[in-house]
This record gives sequence, C-alpha cells and structure tokens, in this order.
Amino acid sequence: MQNKNFRKKKSKASSPKELIKGIIAGNKIALSKAITLCESSRKEDRKDANQILNACLSRSGEGIRIGISGVPGVGKSTFIESFGNYLIDQGKKVAVLAVDPSSEKSKGSILGDKTRMELLSRKEDAYIRPTATGGALGGVALNSKESIILCEAAGFEVILIETVGVGQSETEVRQMCDFFLLLMLAGAGDELQGIKRGIMEMADGLVINKADGENVDAAKKAKRNYQNALHLFPPNASQWTPEVASCSALKNKNMEGVWQMVSSHEELLKQNGYWVKQREEQNQKWFAKSIRSLIELRLFADQSNAQLYQEMEKRVIKGELAAYEAAEKLLPHLLDALQARR
Amino acid sequence: MQNKNFRKKKSKASSPKELIKGIIAGNKIALSKAITLCESSRKEDRKDANQILNACLSRSGEGIRIGISGVPGVGKSTFIESFGNYLIDQGKKVAVLAVDPSSEKSKGSILGDKTRMELLSRKEDAYIRPTATGGALGGVALNSKESIILCEAAGFEVILIETVGVGQSETEVRQMCDFFLLLMLAGAGDELQGIKRGIMEMADGLVINKADGENVDAAKKAKRNYQNALHLFPPNASQWTPEVASCSALKNKNMEGVWQMVSSHEELLKQNGYWVKQREEQNQKWFAKSIRSLIELRLFADQSNAQLYQEMEKRVIKGELAAYEAAEKLLPHLLDALQARR
Repeated sequence: MQNKNFRKKKSKASSPKELIKGIIAGNKIALSKAITLCESSRKEDRKDANQILNACLSRSGEGIRIGISGVPGVGKSTFIESFGNYLIDQGKKVAVLAVDPSSEKSKGSILGDKTRMELLSRKEDAYIRPTATGGALGGVALNSKESIILCEAAGFEVILIETVGVGQSETEVRQMCDFFLLLMLAGAGDELQGIKRGIMEMADGLVINKADGENVDAAKKAKRNYQNALHLFPPNASQWTPEVASCSALKNKNMEGVWQMVSSHEELLKQNGYWVKQREEQNQKWFAKSIRSLIELRLFADQSNAQLYQEMEKRVIKGELAAYEAAEKLLPHLLDALQARR
Repeated sequence: MQNKNFRKKKSKASSPKELIKGIIAGNKIALSKAITLCESSRKEDRKDANQILNACLSRSGEGIRIGISGVPGVGKSTFIESFGNYLIDQGKKVAVLAVDPSSEKSKGSILGDKTRMELLSRKEDAYIRPTATGGALGGVALNSKESIILCEAAGFEVILIETVGVGQSETEVRQMCDFFLLLMLAGAGDELQGIKRGIMEMADGLVINKADGENVDAAKKAKRNYQNALHLFPPNASQWTPEVASCSALKNKNMEGVWQMVSSHEELLKQNGYWVKQREEQNQKWFAKSIRSLIELRLFADQSNAQLYQEMEKRVIKGELAAYEAAEKLLPHLLDALQARR
C-alpha cells in the first residue's frame, strides 16, 4: 500500500531534469508530462516548463511541421491516420497535435483522439496528443508551439498539427508550421460551405480526399479546377506554387503523392533559404504574441476591468463612442489594477 | 502686419466647436483641420479631436466605404480619378483617403496626391486627403477610421480608401470598409507578382483595369478566369459572391459597371442584415486595436524597454530562448517603466 502510494507520487512528480532526460531518450510518458507542465497555469509548473523547454530548444528544429486543416466531414482523422501510418512505414517518427478545442468528435479528450486514430495510436513510432488546454498564456496555439519543440526534442520527425478549419486558430497554426495543407472534397463547391475565407490562400497544398469509388471522376475534375484557380493566386513569398493532389485516406491511396508534395516544398525552401527565414519570422511573431498575451492577461485578470471593457466595447460597437476615447478612458483603470497587484 | 499675424493665428487655432460646425456645414477646410487634429500626437490636440469625433459620430455611418487596392502600376490613381468623377456626375459627394505611407508616387505629400488626381481634386464635391501620419496611436489605419467618420459627418457619401496592395495595411483597410475592391491587370499571372497573398480572398470585387485597345481580349479572358476561380472560393459570411468586372479608367469605360457591383453588394447586405453586423464587428475590432496600441505605446515609450525587447527578440528568433520565458523576463521591466511614468 505504502509502496503503491510512493510509486504513484514519484510517477506524478518527475523532476525537470528527469523529464528532459526522458524526452531526449524518446520516452513518450516524459514527453506527455512535459507538455502538461507547459499547459499548466500554475507558477511552479511554468518554471519547470521553462527549464525543460530551454533544454529542448537546441534539440528541436529538425522536424517538418505540417498544419492540416479542413471542415468537419472532410475526413481529417482518417487522413492523419493513413498519412501517419504511411510515414511510419517509411521509417519516420510521427507526432500528431490537435489544436482546436472545439473539435466536436473528440471533445478534446484523450480517449476521443485515440479512438479516432486507432491504428496510429498503437504504433510505437507515433505520438498523439489531443487538444491542448489554454495554459498560462491563455492561448491554445501558443502552447502548441511549445509542444512542437518538445516533440522534436523527443525525436519526432514529422509533426502533424490538426485544426478544424472553421475556427479562429488557422492563422495561428499557419504561424507554426512549415507546410499548410488544406483537405477538400470533390463536389461543386458545396464542400466549401463553412470554410473560413482566406484559408485557401494560406495553403501550400490542397488535397482532395475521398477520391475513391464513384468519387474518382469528380475528384479529378476538382483537382483540375483547383489547379487552375491556384495559378491565378499571387505567388508565395517563398516562391513555392501551391499544388493540388487527390487521395483516398480510407483506402490508403496516394499518401506518397501527398508526401512528395511536402518534400518538394521542403527541398525548394531549403534551397532558396526561405525555410530558415520562415522559421525565424515565426519565432519573432511567437515572441510578440507571448508578450502581448501576458500583458493582456495581467490587465484583464481583474474582473471589474473585464466588465468595464465590455461596457465600453458595447458603446463603441453601437457607434456611441469613438474607440480612441474609450481606450483612453479605460487605460487608467487597467493600470491602477496592475499597480495594486504588483 | 499685425492684422496679418492675427488672421494667421486665428486660422490655425479654430476651436473644436467651430470645427464641428464647419464640418457639419460641409466645409472642407474645417474637415482637414479636424483630421490633422486626429493625426496629432499632442495631448491637447487629441482632447479636441475626441470632442470633434464624438460630435461627428452620430452624424456618420451613412456613407459607403470602399477600400481600393492593387499593386503599383495597376492604375489606382487613374481609376480613383475616373471612378470619383463618375460618382460626382451621379450627384454623389466623394472623399478619397490614402492609407499607405509608402506610396511611391505621391511620397505622401498633398501635392503628390493632388497631382495624381488633378480633375477630381478640382471638383467641389470631391475631397482628397493624402497619406495619414502615424498619429497618437502610432497606426496609420486607426487614424483613417477616424477620418472616415469626419468625412461622413461632412456629408461625403462615398469614401474611397486607397491602399497599395503590397504592404501591411490591407487587412486593416479591409477592417474599415464595406466593400473591398482589388484592381488587377489582364495578363498571364505576371501582374500578380508583388501582390500579397490573402488579398484576393479579402476582395468583394475584382476589377480588371486597362481593358482598352489591344488589351480588350486579354481583359475578357482574365475576367472569365477570375470568375471561375472565385467560384471555387468559400462563400463570404455575408453571402455575397465576389464579382469580376473590367474597365478602362483611362478611357472612363465601365465605371457604371463597377458602381453597379458595389450597389448590388450594398443591397444584398442591407437586406440580410450583414451591413450593420459588419460595421459593428469592425467597431469591436477598432476598440480592441485602440486599447492594445495605447498599452503598447506606453510600455515601449521607454527607450531601454524597446532595446531590451529587441535583444530578447533576437534570442527567440535564433532559437536560443523560448518565447514565453523571454516574455516573462521582459514583463517586469515594462511594468516598472509604466509605474515610473504615472
């Protein structure tokens, strides 16, 4: 009995040093614990998290970070299962991070995500981490960036970052991945219902899923249409021209085509220097976002400030008050609360 | 001599009340002075500006706000001149605001803008305001939002907000207009060089300019191609399907087609309630942006803080330090400076 308790306690409270060692050895339990620490809003946890992150930072960066988006029903889980298994068969280690907290199917539970990707979750070379919680910075996406670093330090070579494609997090996910892949369905535009505008132009590649059975012809046609459309888009800063592929995740068809697309992109960007440039710009924004989040969390920690903000906001929305004046009026209250808390 | 000085002084320092009266009477000099006050970073000017804005707010909102973007060389000035004159011929009062400070042709000078739109600038029913300066909030775009309010209060019914299409300000301009129009040229994609990705999906309408002479056929073809491409885009939240028109600003051809497009959009959105909804959402973001700008201006007013930020940023960019820890380290310094300044 005593022994059991002791073991339980020990298993819960690994030291940062132990976790770092575990992560570097590729231990998935250590990795999970470290991610949980990063997601925690407790001060002591955050201190440990910082220590772990700093140790992992220099061991990260070698992975390919692929954002995967698409509306519900497009087959994201099936795609990730199929694509992930394909990559593992090629000898890669694959981590899957889900970003959207609103994912309907999984409800953010571990069980949900594991059920969704049953085959993949049983593979030794796969690591699946369900939806992140808000964490210290209050932002799911900021935490995911840290999870990427930890996964890479643990030796995962392909990081798949899943997002729902209808929410607020796509831009943020774009900001943390090397390649942004948008899953689509064949069909006369109906499948676009619900996709957020602007996502298509963010994509480095479109993949038309469910290109099987009766759908094969429609998928071919959709592929051609999207290829034509993408040619009308302005070129990427990276000089990469977005590509279109079709696949059937259900039948494990053409995963090699999708991987080929991702690899060509990597090759081009590593050649022309944009790979590093993009990562550095992402780090820059990551810092700006972190400091901004921290400041705002402090300023609005006070309930009365949050309430005052909402009242002012209402008047600005209704056109009763100009934004600048409202902001000027609000600021002293925010600063007072800040001073009181120091 | 004394008299002259007196007059000069008086002309400079109109009271807010006088300016409000002038604006409501449609006086362009009063309007210009009020906009200058809004752009000022002097505290007293800002107080006057707030008073004027509050008085004008209830008299604003009736205008149509049209954002106009496109790369240099697409003919933006000529288009605005031609479109503006067409609207004035239809009995409208037209204001033109330029947002990009980097506009190469005008260098942001009044003379530059007036030279660019010579015919329009001489019309009684036109008001042309060149590039805004940073102003109290440090943001060109935030000032433009205030300029829109003042122009509308002065009776201007169509507000054209020009932006270069290659910079940072397009998203911000999108956030202050009802209709976002992207000017394009016919040609096999070459004209897209330099346009920022994401702009096409922001557009409510594409207008292919220079559809004259030998270009007519190419423009027709481009129009068809873009129409097909736009159909593949996800629909707008407003249910509006972006349209494509061609025109020749130089020959004043098909300005009525462009206006027809803008009017159909207005009709639909006023019918389905999205017109007001979009304006309210814009106000909400305007407030959020204002308070954020004010806070950041305060925090980084201290030179040593700005320097510290840059040093930290460099380490985060190079992957030597995780963003959260850097932010945590920076925050106390920012707060100290804030406290010292109160």
